[in-house]
Amino acid sequence: MIQSSTGRLRLLHIDASARLGESGRDKHGSHTRRLGRRFVERWAAVRPQDEVHHLDVGRTPPAPVNEAWIAAAFCPPERRNPAQKAVLAESDSLIAALIQADLIVIGAPMYNFGLPAPLKAWIDNVVRVGVTFGFDRTRPGAPYWPMLPESKRLIILTARGDYGYDPGERLAQMNLVEAGLKVPLAYIGLLESDVIAIEYDEFADTRLAVSIAEAEAAVDQLVDGLAAGVEPVS
Amino acid sequence: MIQSSTGRLRLLHIDASARLGESGRDKHGSHTRRLGRRFVERWAAVRPQDEVHHLDVGRTPPAPVNEAWIAAAFCPPERRNPAQKAVLAESDSLIAALIQADLIVIGAPMYNFGLPAPLKAWIDNVVRVGVTFGFDRTRPGAPYWPMLPESKRLIILTARGDYGYDPGERLAQMNLVEAGLKVPLAYIGLLESDVIAIEYDEFADTRLAVSIAEAEAAVDQLVDGLAAGVEPVS
Repeated sequence: MIQSSTGRLRLLHIDASARLGESGRDKHGSHTRRLGRRFVERWAAVRPQDEVHHLDVGRTPPAPVNEAWIAAAFCPPERRNPAQKAVLAESDSLIAALIQADLIVIGAPMYNFGLPAPLKAWIDNVVRVGVTFGFDRTRPGAPYWPMLPESKRLIILTARGDYGYDPGERLAQMNLVEAGLKVPLAYIGLLESDVIAIEYDEFADTRLAVSIAEAEAAVDQLVDGLAAGVEPVS
Repeated sequence: MIQSSTGRLRLLHIDASARLGESGRDKHGSHTRRLGRRFVERWAAVRPQDEVHHLDVGRTPPAPVNEAWIAAAFCPPERRNPAQKAVLAESDSLIAALIQADLIVIGAPMYNFGLPAPLKAWIDNVVRVGVTFGFDRTRPGAPYWPMLPESKRLIILTARGDYGYDPGERLAQMNLVEAGLKVPLAYIGLLESDVIAIEYDEFADTRLAVSIAEAEAAVDQLVDGLAAGVEPVS
């Protein structure tokens, strides 16, 4: 169930594929861009009142965090100088988009068993002390706590060249994509998630076609189910 | 056992920390840089005839792979145009250093439970079709095979803010660092690895001091054991 106090929801749609075209439209196009577009277009058809913000880290990778970023992030906001504010500007903007979103839809292809590097750069920019998680060394129990508003929902749309990466399957232990997103995002408060995957890309045979058809049907069902579950805050 | 046909070995030492100083020398310095320096300095003391090549992806992140990179990598080398060769130049250079190395020592701090983004960018540049792994869709059995020369050895020097990330410990399931390196590097043929970790950084108490001392002792022991095991190819 997704709650809306205004009657409108905000979707943050992130593309991370290095391939800028879409499979089914463009040669060597991205499967995750195809699924992401399907998700947001169907969502807009069912709930035209909602806003969609698109972020393309595949096309424009965020800068990886560096030493100046870390120093600025750990400096109390009221003591930051203009250079420190500037070094955090991209992180500020990425975090603002995340905080505003009710639904976060991430197209995350598997690259060498894990996330594309620019998507990890996005994570390292949005997991930020005092903004998306709290840290207090003297706190009893765990010294960390998540700071994102509750009830956000994460949707992972992924694609794999090989097959058998789902939980319990033959290559599950080698799949670092879903954990690569879920573990750090749960740490900042994004606890609920769904995963839809296309497999068999590298085999380019009927198994790929079936996998695409199944993933597209799963996207449609997920959109319809989520949209039907949106409730006004009473 | 590491084999050497020339009597000399080559070490590839990779630093990935965004922190450019070293703990114990510089304020807020990197623990993984500290361990990496200790490793190569001790190695040079024991085997001064060996070469060390240093690569600093923390200071100078490799470009993430993009669509032009993928297209160039999948184009047969003899048909690549100058622009395609240029887009692969950094990957060529990173792979050459990897192929030449007998021992690969990677300083890989845990950032938000996984690899720093620039280290994943390095992986995405060195895992390359036709160069470090083979792919043939029509091959019976697995269509992939590793292409790196055998008998290379991987050393992972890591550091974690919290504690309990080793196999079987309380946070093992959230640790995506070692798998993030071992899984893709095994895929290209780097099968043997050792891991040494510093924990408790964020607590900055005696537990951190003990962890650093233990990790440094483990580095010394590993260097001595590996160096003693180097054998000439008969």
